Amino acid sequence: MRIRKGEKKDMPQVLALINELATFEKEPDAVVIDADYLIENGFSNSPAFFTYVAEIDHEIVGMALFYYRFSTWKGKTIHLEDLIVKKDKRGLGIGKALYNQVLKFAYKKQVKRVEWVVLDWNTNAIDFYEKSGATILKDWYTVQMSEENLASYLKTQQII
Amino acid sequence: MRIRKGEKKDMPQVLALINELATFEKEPDAVVIDADYLIENGFSNSPAFFTYVAEIDHEIVGMALFYYRFSTWKGKTIHLEDLIVKKDKRGLGIGKALYNQVLKFAYKKQVKRVEWVVLDWNTNAIDFYEKSGATILKDWYTVQMSEENLASYLKTQQII
Repeated sequence: MRIRKGEKKDMPQVLALINELATFEKEPDAVVIDADYLIENGFSNSPAFFTYVAEIDHEIVGMALFYYRFSTWKGKTIHLEDLIVKKDKRGLGIGKALYNQVLKFAYKKQVKRVEWVVLDWNTNAIDFYEKSGATILKDWYTVQMSEENLASYLKTQQII
Repeated sequence: MRIRKGEKKDMPQVLALINELATFEKEPDAVVIDADYLIENGFSNSPAFFTYVAEIDHEIVGMALFYYRFSTWKGKTIHLEDLIVKKDKRGLGIGKALYNQVLKFAYKKQVKRVEWVVLDWNTNAIDFYEKSGATILKDWYTVQMSEENLASYLKTQQII
């Protein structure tokens, strides 16, 4: 198994992993991006994200996708958006290898914090994160406004 | 009251708002950045964040700081990191004006989602967000690893 930076040519396989996970989570239609969108946004002069991929016999079996965020207290931080291992390749240490690689990247870039989210029922993951030194913040809720609701709200405000 | 894009010259006052809030939250030492850091990171060729400021009689009385994130399902999204109104200027609609301005920016950029976080005890804010069409996700925890714990973990993994 080899961990390396994701390249343009890997994006179709990275998208396949994203779709596999969305299907597993019973939301196959939630993925609205395609491989070209990943290439366009991840490999421009100011990339919207970075990836590491795990490769076995030229097959991409896992990926981690991350990007910079900005804390008004700490400055630049790294956000780990997604870490996916192909279903039939779990238990081989691929997830941990990708996790370690992202953390190493963050360390080298001297960011003050690495951040991600976890579902509250995923106790295995929570235990793993805590053992590695991460803190689980249970008193913050994530708030999201969809494109549709954004448009509705702005209309009620007579902004659009 | 005037809402406009934040400029380099506003960053000392933006930092003052950040520090005021940190002091109010009894964490005055948590802010490790300074105004030069904000200028360096927010006004480069690929800015780490954007700001809107609220101005009354040439004084900055509020600010919203936001940046792009990247969802593997939705593509580019906007994250609202901080929205602060000076303590003695609350109740004048400044917060809502900044909120609307950020949402308008997101709408114009055609992002698929706007996201932020809220403390679970802040029911006034939660009610306001829900009324405006946002969804509160209560089943996700935020996970953070500090710079110090990052170094410790990577040492145990013999990576550094």
